[in-house]
Amino acid sequence: MKIAVLGTGMVGQALAGRLSELGHDVVIGTRDPQSTLARTEPDGMGNPPVSAWLQDHRAVGLATFADAVAGAELVVNATSGNGAIPALELAGADNLAGKVVLDISNPLDFSNGFPPTLFVKDTDSLGEQVQRAFPQARVVKTLNTLNAHLMVNPKALGQESSVFVSGDDAAAKATVTELLESFGHTDVIDLGDITTARGTEMLLPVWLRLMGALGTPAFNFKIVR
Amino acid sequence: MKIAVLGTGMVGQALAGRLSELGHDVVIGTRDPQSTLARTEPDGMGNPPVSAWLQDHRAVGLATFADAVAGAELVVNATSGNGAIPALELAGADNLAGKVVLDISNPLDFSNGFPPTLFVKDTDSLGEQVQRAFPQARVVKTLNTLNAHLMVNPKALGQESSVFVSGDDAAAKATVTELLESFGHTDVIDLGDITTARGTEMLLPVWLRLMGALGTPAFNFKIVR
Repeated sequence: MKIAVLGTGMVGQALAGRLSELGHDVVIGTRDPQSTLARTEPDGMGNPPVSAWLQDHRAVGLATFADAVAGAELVVNATSGNGAIPALELAGADNLAGKVVLDISNPLDFSNGFPPTLFVKDTDSLGEQVQRAFPQARVVKTLNTLNAHLMVNPKALGQESSVFVSGDDAAAKATVTELLESFGHTDVIDLGDITTARGTEMLLPVWLRLMGALGTPAFNFKIVR
Repeated sequence: MKIAVLGTGMVGQALAGRLSELGHDVVIGTRDPQSTLARTEPDGMGNPPVSAWLQDHRAVGLATFADAVAGAELVVNATSGNGAIPALELAGADNLAGKVVLDISNPLDFSNGFPPTLFVKDTDSLGEQVQRAFPQARVVKTLNTLNAHLMVNPKALGQESSVFVSGDDAAAKATVTELLESFGHTDVIDLGDITTARGTEMLLPVWLRLMGALGTPAFNFKIVR
């Protein structure tokens, strides 16, 4: 499948790399490819610059948000929370129309330091904001409840765990579920319509505290039943 | 141990029954014991009235919030979210001083129907509100992330799952952890100080959506790592 991955950070790299490895035709979307390629310093989290990552992943392309999405059948939104809607606006509503948007973004607000708070919650969610802003896109919120490495390699935990899908379009959720299963996920729980993204986005606060308590991001929620 | 359980609903009954079964000396606290005993109809959730429940649990006492807490070494707050601080005020700050308060309450707001929203979240929590209102109480937020039956019988799931403790007092958390282990919990995760209750209280929205998606409240979170 032709897939655009929006965002050049840890999540974007993890998704793009794994999708490419699985044989998909992947293009990373960014605001300005030239300035993205010109960055030679690690990012704030210590990750290598995208330019170096791309040299190790020659099959993955780099393009503007608009060009990446125009050529794609499916779009992965791996931007930071407050970058999600601006990135999708640059991608263009017309380019997004009819396409599955696998939305991983979380509404984290770091403006008051760590731990971050959520800039939308409880009575609304970032997933819903994205769906409202792009009503012709087929938004599926998923993978926002575990770390980037485990999103695409859940078997690395050595035990089964769970992921969630939220969205209004059943066929889009089926497409996303198939992708998740191709990553190794074995328990994909359909929570319901896009309003259920409120639930998974509000998992972030306990996820962050668990990372602190456990001293590692290498964990995931399993719904035991 | 002498234990006061505040609240006569499903959670209060589950905790009081199990603690009594384990040999503790349990008194349920309520606003007005006479009117509590006079209720002969099932509650809004279809649970039998407390009067009937007490006839099946002769070892469990019933008293005012203040009397129950005055005679107790440990207090379980099993009131509804918006009833928590009023109940504890009736119990009395002096009666609570120095005591471990195992706080199960969740800040659920049903005023706009189902699913409920949270009346405090993200930058504060009900656990913190309780601790601030009763600074001499040793508040431990726990058990608010699973249903009443599983709180006290986690082995009923047939697989291990996790519970969390949040609180400022390490000795109080150790006491509560011991109680939880006596119920059958095998993975009690200490998230940190009482501010980490924001994380577990914000689990409620996804818990409620999971109950809808799975068609049962008989599930729990396990932190796989």
